[in-house]
Amino acid sequence: MAAIGIVGSAGRMGQALAAAIDEAGETRAGGADRGDDVGALAGKADALVDFSTPGALADTLDACVKAGIPLLIGTTGLSADNHAAIDAAARTIPVLQTGNTSLGVTMLAALVEQAAARLGDDWDIEIVEMHHRMKVDAPSGTAILLGEAAARGRGIDLAAHTESGRDCHTGARATGAIGFAALRGGTVAGEHSVILAGEQERITISHSAENRAIFARGAVKGAKWLIGQPAGRYTMNDLLGL
Amino acid sequence: MAAIGIVGSAGRMGQALAAAIDEAGETRAGGADRGDDVGALAGKADALVDFSTPGALADTLDACVKAGIPLLIGTTGLSADNHAAIDAAARTIPVLQTGNTSLGVTMLAALVEQAAARLGDDWDIEIVEMHHRMKVDAPSGTAILLGEAAARGRGIDLAAHTESGRDCHTGARATGAIGFAALRGGTVAGEHSVILAGEQERITISHSAENRAIFARGAVKGAKWLIGQPAGRYTMNDLLGL
Amino acid sequence: MAAIGIVGSAGRMGQALAAAIDEAGETRAGGADRGDDVGALAGKADALVDFSTPGALADTLDACVKAGIPLLIGTTGLSADNHAAIDAAARTIPVLQTGNTSLGVTMLAALVEQAAARLGDDWDIEIVEMHHRMKVDAPSGTAILLGEAAARGRGIDLAAHTESGRDCHTGARATGAIGFAALRGGTVAGEHSVILAGEQERITISHSAENRAIFARGAVKGAKWLIGQPAGRYTMNDLLGL
Amino acid sequence: MAAIGIVGSAGRMGQALAAAIDEAGETRAGGADRGDDVGALAGKADALVDFSTPGALADTLDACVKAGIPLLIGTTGLSADNHAAIDAAARTIPVLQTGNTSLGVTMLAALVEQAAARLGDDWDIEIVEMHHRMKVDAPSGTAILLGEAAARGRGIDLAAHTESGRDCHTGARATGAIGFAALRGGTVAGEHSVILAGEQERITISHSAENRAIFARGAVKGAKWLIGQPAGRYTMNDLLGL
Repeated sequence: MAAIGIVGSAGRMGQALAAAIDEAGETRAGGADRGDDVGALAGKADALVDFSTPGALADTLDACVKAGIPLLIGTTGLSADNHAAIDAAARTIPVLQTGNTSLGVTMLAALVEQAAARLGDDWDIEIVEMHHRMKVDAPSGTAILLGEAAARGRGIDLAAHTESGRDCHTGARATGAIGFAALRGGTVAGEHSVILAGEQERITISHSAENRAIFARGAVKGAKWLIGQPAGRYTMNDLLGL
Repeated sequence: MAAIGIVGSAGRMGQALAAAIDEAGETRAGGADRGDDVGALAGKADALVDFSTPGALADTLDACVKAGIPLLIGTTGLSADNHAAIDAAARTIPVLQTGNTSLGVTMLAALVEQAAARLGDDWDIEIVEMHHRMKVDAPSGTAILLGEAAARGRGIDLAAHTESGRDCHTGARATGAIGFAALRGGTVAGEHSVILAGEQERITISHSAENRAIFARGAVKGAKWLIGQPAGRYTMNDLLGL
Repeated sequence: MAAIGIVGSAGRMGQALAAAIDEAGETRAGGADRGDDVGALAGKADALVDFSTPGALADTLDACVKAGIPLLIGTTGLSADNHAAIDAAARTIPVLQTGNTSLGVTMLAALVEQAAARLGDDWDIEIVEMHHRMKVDAPSGTAILLGEAAARGRGIDLAAHTESGRDCHTGARATGAIGFAALRGGTVAGEHSVILAGEQERITISHSAENRAIFARGAVKGAKWLIGQPAGRYTMNDLLGL
Repeated sequence: MAAIGIVGSAGRMGQALAAAIDEAGETRAGGADRGDDVGALAGKADALVDFSTPGALADTLDACVKAGIPLLIGTTGLSADNHAAIDAAARTIPVLQTGNTSLGVTMLAALVEQAAARLGDDWDIEIVEMHHRMKVDAPSGTAILLGEAAARGRGIDLAAHTESGRDCHTGARATGAIGFAALRGGTVAGEHSVILAGEQERITISHSAENRAIFARGAVKGAKWLIGQPAGRYTMNDLLGL
């Protein structure tokens, strides 16, 4: 049983993390928010999970290094300085930083990269996602992550090959393009499909999330897995052995 | 066994119609193209099918009226004059005019209209279609036909409620909007889905075409069905008893 | 704002109903369970919802008749005596009895019935459902409800046309058969698809539930709708104007 | 431009292979059927493709070895003797033997194996396929091939973990089971989906064939690829670099 501390415990994700720690049968080591002493939290935890803000990251990294415990970072919008600080800390402790803690999405991206790498560009790639009616941007961050996986598999630059928001006179599809389409409606937590359409056959690789608890659950799995790993910088791929 | 004549027999659709007549066990009464005498064709047929050009329609209608036989019209791009001529002929003979001769698409549009009429506008409507990589416009004509069915069910104007080609900062979805998304790739003959997304539940109504022969097959069924109907103007809905 | 009372308030569905009443902005009139005075509950409510047991139904009906308020019944496993008592009460008050309170499933069944009625039996009907790994029977009650809607549309008897659990040497599909297949896995709340497969085209009508709250939500909508209706026996179809 | 000869040229697959050779811009070296001299065919070809019978295989292998040209074998129902003969010939020439020449299905099986290997057995695996109404057995050979890929990824024996034809009182799903379901209807050429259902998230990996020409096309790609490979025994995986 591992004691896991939460940095950014008061927010929506912090509460989801607390529930996921309980569900996994681990122990909550407590939480820290703006103004709290993250060093004290690290002193009584086996690992920390940080879904707070880029500005708080340096303190969290220091606290983990001093306590000699691993850290999983799910905070988004990190700067180059943040990344350098992560690299430095990873010489001493295990650190996993990721933009998406879902095991399913991590797996999906790996499958998409492999399919794109093996099938030639006569297989057209389309990415379609659906989210709830309140979402204000398109395509979703996960759709872009999947597009990057496809582009990496193909050895091409995503931005230079994106076709998005098709409407009116589009002309025929460009060879090698990666298309994006966004559906919005209801309360859909998140669905993504990557289609590879070839000559008279088609492969579709999809992920469906029933709710957003999967991100907290994956983060707790990641933190548990980090305990006992050697110092170094990890991704969710390492957790799945990819 | 009915003898069916084809106006516009030399084109791709004309050839598909000939094959569909054979498949259905009916008789080919022959074909007429630019310069041919459509009156002679009508004289030896039990019904005509016209997938040619708006300019040829007046002659075809005259020939059918003179021969006293029904006509199925699949020609697109008809003018107000064409429609007036159809109405005039329909006082004497049965005429079925339609933009889509697939039985499945006709059925789908009726289901979409009913669902949109019965479920309130807290059920968000999204229409997504996929076609082969060579298609040069978006959304497809069938997608628009389905959008019009949804709008009719809702009692709203489609053009005033269309959300299409979502990209970048879209803002939250407008209540009552009908969204369109277009996927392109491979050799897909045509797939359409209409999604109604409510609070934590979703209805999806889809049509998938394996190839374009379904349009010829539906046209032949329509022509066969017209034989024996009273004079009047019909749609594919009448064929399905909708 | 309507005051809605819950018979069977202590169970899982009772709790979901309480949450749905709050969510809909209505008032909870209180609950009654085994041993409680349902008459007192009816006296202070605008409508009752009963998801308890067949044995408790007679008392609930009496209480509603005396108070002159409508009743929505979601209890399953009703006997012929139960149905006779419902019919008697429905001469005085509005009563809605149903085996499925989801608006989406109700809509789906109506669409399936219409499609089956309009398309001939050269369109093969298949019903596939997926539920969580703990479900112990197959096909689901909702799948059977959809099969009955299809059979009603076709004017056939479901039991005499069911093909289920295909395995090994099945032989070719029987004309007019209605096939069932059951998928089990994960935590899926419930997904149902009805496929009508014709010559080279296919219609699929699907419902997806994100969680089981949709049943409580539909029940509360039904109870609200019953208030102000004339005495009579209703189904969820009436709520949707079907 | 390669000259490709067809063993078993008179059958349906033989004709599809001839069309695929033309479509790919290669040359037809001719065909051989029962009683024909396959040695003469091998003498004027750069590679042979054999979709005939197990009994004819020994002669085809001999002819290819003598001519020093590669052979792609799509014949099914091979015996242990057939496999030994293939191994012997593969010391001298490149031989690719496979039960499924579709590039898409080959890719799909590799993705399924990887996903099953990386995700634990708390992700339930279900395989569902749909084929036309005339198919007489279930599940399809491709569904079994995908089940074997999943079992290989998991390191388990498929036969000992199969759940198939669910009906009536099934009990809860067994941990680690691989479920199969078969849909039949219309003219569907072949659709397969492998679902991995975890805690509140799901991955689906699907393949859809528009028609059976994909098998001929893949075989011709395989034969072309074999030309220039060193002697050895290959599978479709090698063609995709898997």
